[in-house]
Amino acid sequence: MTIALPKRVRIVEVGPRDGLQNEAGLVPVEAKVALIEALADAGLKSIEAGSFVSPKWVPQMADTAAVLARLKRVPGVSYPVLVPNMQGFEAAAAAGVEEIAVFGAASESFSRRNINCSIAESLDRFRPVAKAALARGMRLRGYVSCVLGCPYEGAVAPSAVAAVAGALAEMGCAEISLGDTIGVGTPLKAQAMLRAVAEIVPMERLAVHFHDSWGQALANILACLEIGVSVVDSAVAGLGGCPYAKGATGNVATEDVVYMLDGMGIETGVDLAKLAAAGRAISAALGRAPVSKVAQVLAKQAA
Amino acid sequence: MTIALPKRVRIVEVGPRDGLQNEAGLVPVEAKVALIEALADAGLKSIEAGSFVSPKWVPQMADTAAVLARLKRVPGVSYPVLVPNMQGFEAAAAAGVEEIAVFGAASESFSRRNINCSIAESLDRFRPVAKAALARGMRLRGYVSCVLGCPYEGAVAPSAVAAVAGALAEMGCAEISLGDTIGVGTPLKAQAMLRAVAEIVPMERLAVHFHDSWGQALANILACLEIGVSVVDSAVAGLGGCPYAKGATGNVATEDVVYMLDGMGIETGVDLAKLAAAGRAISAALGRAPVSKVAQVLAKQAA
Repeated sequence: MTIALPKRVRIVEVGPRDGLQNEAGLVPVEAKVALIEALADAGLKSIEAGSFVSPKWVPQMADTAAVLARLKRVPGVSYPVLVPNMQGFEAAAAAGVEEIAVFGAASESFSRRNINCSIAESLDRFRPVAKAALARGMRLRGYVSCVLGCPYEGAVAPSAVAAVAGALAEMGCAEISLGDTIGVGTPLKAQAMLRAVAEIVPMERLAVHFHDSWGQALANILACLEIGVSVVDSAVAGLGGCPYAKGATGNVATEDVVYMLDGMGIETGVDLAKLAAAGRAISAALGRAPVSKVAQVLAKQAA
Repeated sequence: MTIALPKRVRIVEVGPRDGLQNEAGLVPVEAKVALIEALADAGLKSIEAGSFVSPKWVPQMADTAAVLARLKRVPGVSYPVLVPNMQGFEAAAAAGVEEIAVFGAASESFSRRNINCSIAESLDRFRPVAKAALARGMRLRGYVSCVLGCPYEGAVAPSAVAAVAGALAEMGCAEISLGDTIGVGTPLKAQAMLRAVAEIVPMERLAVHFHDSWGQALANILACLEIGVSVVDSAVAGLGGCPYAKGATGNVATEDVVYMLDGMGIETGVDLAKLAAAGRAISAALGRAPVSKVAQVLAKQAA
């Protein structure tokens, strides 16, 4: 059987946002700026830079405006930020952001516990944000979380994921990222979910976003590439997943994804050595080793 | 594209041999016996129990005869041991072993450094062992190492792997395990190698054996299942790969493999909870945590 893989994959680096927001330690603004600039230098073209959410809920992202102000932006690189509502949108617009992301869940219980409203209410809250963003010419990205399982509800139906993804597409999201937030998915379930969503939203507008809690992320990514996805979210050094933290659900490490894609001859435009160096620097700022086997081997070679 | 996966996979548990022989710490006989018995109780049907090699070279396996003598063998479970030569074969036969394995390399440099002879010489050394084993009604397994890369030569040609596998098949090996000894492989290279070997030896007689040094093992296993392999080697708790040891090249963790196969509805006959408990016990004997994300999540749940 021949695998029909994409020739090129765009990696959306989510370490500075999804990664760092799930780390126990706070990282100073300078370290975040250095991380984002190092990631751009390594060739990444989409780098999530932070979020404009309440600092009460996510203190790790309270300095996003300061990070954006100090960041030397590279032409051709996008630095999206997460915004939950109009207040966040205004802050993002004031910071000169060109791409924003909104985030919904495929599970009612998770939506209520994570963003304190039902799925339908969250979509109602996003619509004016989307409209305002599109009116300003911003690019809009949508996240769907819990696409392969919910910590409160267990299994999540592919049709529930497709419904939320469809609503986000309809409000103008150029791209929709499907997140296995708790990292429980396995390859065939990932394919079934992706296929269900692709019946509603064209595959070209979909991204996959795997957390590696159960070690399945790379296998799941491979399975999704095989059925046509070509945008993959990941976090340098596996940020967000300190193995010693309770309930760690780190993102798949960008180093591991790039190594796999390089080995399969799939272009990413990313320089693995530079990427791994960026991962070592932010891991040092967090006081621990990168959560990535590729990063660990490269660290030994670099030592 | 539909994936043609096997309905059932046989896992060959190599932790007590390939795993423990690569651990820095020595494990007492009782702990090894307890491990092997716990693995059988978890449902594994092929459990490598040790090797009869020079204790000068592999002190971790010096007590294999003692382990076999104390082991309560379960009917229907095979406990293969590695033997490098006739001397090892005689020791295995004296211990009542019913399955032995011989091990060759696909790389000349690795063969010389690992077993101190050329590939051709190693095959010449295995022939009388194979003949004697078959004459006694023993099952014979063959290993080929460095199938996707050699630490001294770099890339290894699939044709070189196929040649060694073919020679092992010809001398009577019922099954040939293809080992990515240094864990550098990626999915398409793994498939290309496996396809080349399957032109010489029927797929039904092939097993894949991935080390997870670069984090690619599960993705590689998935890719190989997709083209027809149905026997997978792995080591409980990722034995052999302590992340703090220099040059660690641990086997893929059996827990991670079983979780993936369970999630895909592929039968293994293995009870994941019992397996993980066995992994925690041997990891405790080694004084460290299991090298497996699945094992780590299950350990938290069990705590």
